[in-house]
Amino acid sequence: MAAPTMEPELAEAHMRGLLAGLGLDVEYVRGEGDTLYYRDRDGTETAVLDLVGGYGTLIFGHNHPDLVALARDLLAKRVPLHAQFSYHPYANELAAALNRVLHREFGIDEPYSAVFANSGAEGIETAMKHAELDRVIRVGELHAAVEADIAAARAAVADGTATVSAEARARLGVTDGVDFDAVVSEIARHNAEVLGRGPVFLTLEGSFHGKLAGSVQLTHNAGYRAPFRALAAQARFVPVDQPGALASVLAEERVALLAPVVVDGQVTLAERDFPAIGAFFVEPVQGEGGIHVLSPELAAEIRAAADSAGFPVVVDEVQSGMGRTGRFFSASGIGLLGDYFVLAKGLGGGIAKTAALLVRQSRYRSDFELVHSSTFAKDALSCHIGIKVVEMLEADDGAAYRLAVERGGRLRRELDAVAAEFPDVVAAVRGRGLMLGIEFHDLTGSTSEVLRDNARAGLIGYLVAGYLLREQSIRVFPTASAAHTLRVEPSLAISDEAIEQFGRALRALCAIIGKADGMALLPN
Amino acid sequence: MAAPTMEPELAEAHMRGLLAGLGLDVEYVRGEGDTLYYRDRDGTETAVLDLVGGYGTLIFGHNHPDLVALARDLLAKRVPLHAQFSYHPYANELAAALNRVLHREFGIDEPYSAVFANSGAEGIETAMKHAELDRVIRVGELHAAVEADIAAARAAVADGTATVSAEARARLGVTDGVDFDAVVSEIARHNAEVLGRGPVFLTLEGSFHGKLAGSVQLTHNAGYRAPFRALAAQARFVPVDQPGALASVLAEERVALLAPVVVDGQVTLAERDFPAIGAFFVEPVQGEGGIHVLSPELAAEIRAAADSAGFPVVVDEVQSGMGRTGRFFSASGIGLLGDYFVLAKGLGGGIAKTAALLVRQSRYRSDFELVHSSTFAKDALSCHIGIKVVEMLEADDGAAYRLAVERGGRLRRELDAVAAEFPDVVAAVRGRGLMLGIEFHDLTGSTSEVLRDNARAGLIGYLVAGYLLREQSIRVFPTASAAHTLRVEPSLAISDEAIEQFGRALRALCAIIGKADGMALLPN
Repeated sequence: MAAPTMEPELAEAHMRGLLAGLGLDVEYVRGEGDTLYYRDRDGTETAVLDLVGGYGTLIFGHNHPDLVALARDLLAKRVPLHAQFSYHPYANELAAALNRVLHREFGIDEPYSAVFANSGAEGIETAMKHAELDRVIRVGELHAAVEADIAAARAAVADGTATVSAEARARLGVTDGVDFDAVVSEIARHNAEVLGRGPVFLTLEGSFHGKLAGSVQLTHNAGYRAPFRALAAQARFVPVDQPGALASVLAEERVALLAPVVVDGQVTLAERDFPAIGAFFVEPVQGEGGIHVLSPELAAEIRAAADSAGFPVVVDEVQSGMGRTGRFFSASGIGLLGDYFVLAKGLGGGIAKTAALLVRQSRYRSDFELVHSSTFAKDALSCHIGIKVVEMLEADDGAAYRLAVERGGRLRRELDAVAAEFPDVVAAVRGRGLMLGIEFHDLTGSTSEVLRDNARAGLIGYLVAGYLLREQSIRVFPTASAAHTLRVEPSLAISDEAIEQFGRALRALCAIIGKADGMALLPN
Repeated sequence: MAAPTMEPELAEAHMRGLLAGLGLDVEYVRGEGDTLYYRDRDGTETAVLDLVGGYGTLIFGHNHPDLVALARDLLAKRVPLHAQFSYHPYANELAAALNRVLHREFGIDEPYSAVFANSGAEGIETAMKHAELDRVIRVGELHAAVEADIAAARAAVADGTATVSAEARARLGVTDGVDFDAVVSEIARHNAEVLGRGPVFLTLEGSFHGKLAGSVQLTHNAGYRAPFRALAAQARFVPVDQPGALASVLAEERVALLAPVVVDGQVTLAERDFPAIGAFFVEPVQGEGGIHVLSPELAAEIRAAADSAGFPVVVDEVQSGMGRTGRFFSASGIGLLGDYFVLAKGLGGGIAKTAALLVRQSRYRSDFELVHSSTFAKDALSCHIGIKVVEMLEADDGAAYRLAVERGGRLRRELDAVAAEFPDVVAAVRGRGLMLGIEFHDLTGSTSEVLRDNARAGLIGYLVAGYLLREQSIRVFPTASAAHTLRVEPSLAISDEAIEQFGRALRALCAIIGKADGMALLPN
């Protein structure tokens, strides 16, 4: 291999420059548990406590021995990684394992069908597609029902058993006497406009559902989303803290087809609710938005709205699921049953790139299997690793979940203690289990130019990350859309010593910020 | 593990039923080279000659020993698979290796920057996003230039050095005398309509560019695309065999902003071409569309159109690249230099899920790195495997490319011989190197009900696949969007014996079809 420094920089050179400016451009050469090792200029390895955990992927840490052994064994056995269009019993086995957990955590017994993908964003786009296929089919059924109504009304008018009501005429603006065709024409004009509408997806302010062409439109951060708005269907972002906001959005989006209905010899107009909402996408714990736990009240409001209007709730457990919050499905902790669930990150155990979309039987469209597929998805390696991940989480009657709660509690106490010691620096500590966030007070008005400028540029979290890496050998990053909140997502195996190390580092950091000594956070 | 048959069917049960009906629902338990092994009911393994090759992924066959050894070694060494936001020298190394090949095959020296993804469809969506960011920036620059023109014209009118030309007034429909604001208002109205337009993506009839929410709109097959049209920006599909079709489409899509320009004391209207086309996506060899090699003439026409109108050409080498046609970039064989290239499938050697988008320096927008990312992409395992794949293809002065040509030639001769023997059954043999297709004549009018019904349902290729698997132990599938064309994409190591086995099997198949004995293709 050529020495990397001899090659031109061709893989995200701009980003590397930004990382280098903060001292973040280290080369990690090995990862085990919560430790990453980078190579110094003199070739020695330095251990770093990694609290990023692959953005929440590494519930079992880097390269867990059992998962590494399984992957190596599967490769040695030459399991077929490319066996598309054949029977994949391991995919069924993983789907069944996920169903068992889902049924227990939510206390239900409805089966959920699984469709596999290769990343969280792919899982979300698969959900978008399934929801749209379902909506298109429902639109077709609704349209056919309206056409049947029109035919029935036409027959009634033709055989003289019904006349068009004055109210219907007035509403449609049809003034001439007996021409039923004019009535139908106005109904068809109204309905065609409605039928031509694409879906509106709903999600919450602060949401993050991926960065692919479709999924990025469900991601609230305008910096990620706005340049690409012309590429895909738009979402509406419902405010989290405004009572009544969801009801208002639903009222605004409500639209209906008109159908002529014969009642007592009169053709009147009935409204048939049109499926305008594609789906409601929701994270039980918002990750990139700053580690915000969804309130059970808002969860219930979303669930009720979906049941009432008929659209599916897609619960995005890409980051929050797979045990991190003390349950496999973090949504079960707030009583939010999804019609769909999307799993990724931790499902591959930090080894495999995999995602699963689960769709409840009563909403599953089996025709989806005929129109959607992926060369790489549903492969033996990913499925077997997924099965093992579920086994490891479920082992010993759910010891892993209890550990997430216990370790998360220990970590939370440390963060709370830091917050209590530095109330002028730390604004909040939030989260569940091993998915925690620590938010700093706004520094855009700091007397330190370094702190002020970085805060204004949305880079304060990266400035802090550089300091913690260089000076404290701790890897931590802000959440992607809330740069003054650090995410803390270690593995189940995080030790007391590591938590204490992080506590000391945070105290040193808070002391620096408290003194408005921004220079101390910069590389030499 | 529970026995698979004891579990409910929760992973694409509907598809499994269809596969079972054709005898295709076997469980493959091992793959090596061009052989997959499935387990019979009595537990014995049966060897199957696999000509599907992971839809073109397996240029080195299933589980190539060197790639398996490398993957196992990387896992054993605990390379960090999750080291986001750090320096990834292996990503730069892979990008550099791809650049060296690209430069040699196309005889250029412009660097191409790499952005990584996890699947071919993700690579395509990444290209869509990059093209759109580029377009949005160019739209912004154009808009600013027009605003500057307006300011200059306004100043000239205000200080009396210019008056609005009668021609401009007439064109804008502004009749009142001296009010420049009315002129600007009409220009702004026109321009706002244009500026609000999303991109139109162009591609060819028969194209396949993936099945994610955005990319599926670039895929011609209406069955895959139409249900999801409301989810993403639309493409226009340019006919392949109509001279002048591309020019017509470009003329239809041409649209301009209006700018007031002062010439000789007169404010006249200039047209500034608006970037209406997002990009032209093109496969050098259409895979799922039925194995069609793009003609050098049409390639040149696309390249010239892009140069003239300023939109990028995105060459989709997801299936055709990585050596399969006797070159790393199959586009180099028809002289089609892309502004972007998308690589996937074979880049991961059949082991890793990876994709790369390459963008030429002169069109690369480094700000893209700030708004796009993927948790799973650019990982050490995928990059190291990708580096090894390039090394294996480039070794011995490109022996692999020569082998693809030689083995492809041998295979092609066999297919041509079958076609010559059964001219009433085989319509055509097409392709390049180890990416070949064999098309059957239309059977929708067959005297055999089985052949006729399956042909009409678009399932003839799957019926044939079932027969070849059950009776001939050969795995082959139709292309996804042209079900009467079988794809033949074995590895470089395909043996003479395997090719002869396939020849015999095809002859047996053709004899059956020639006799219109459809029943002989059904399972017992």
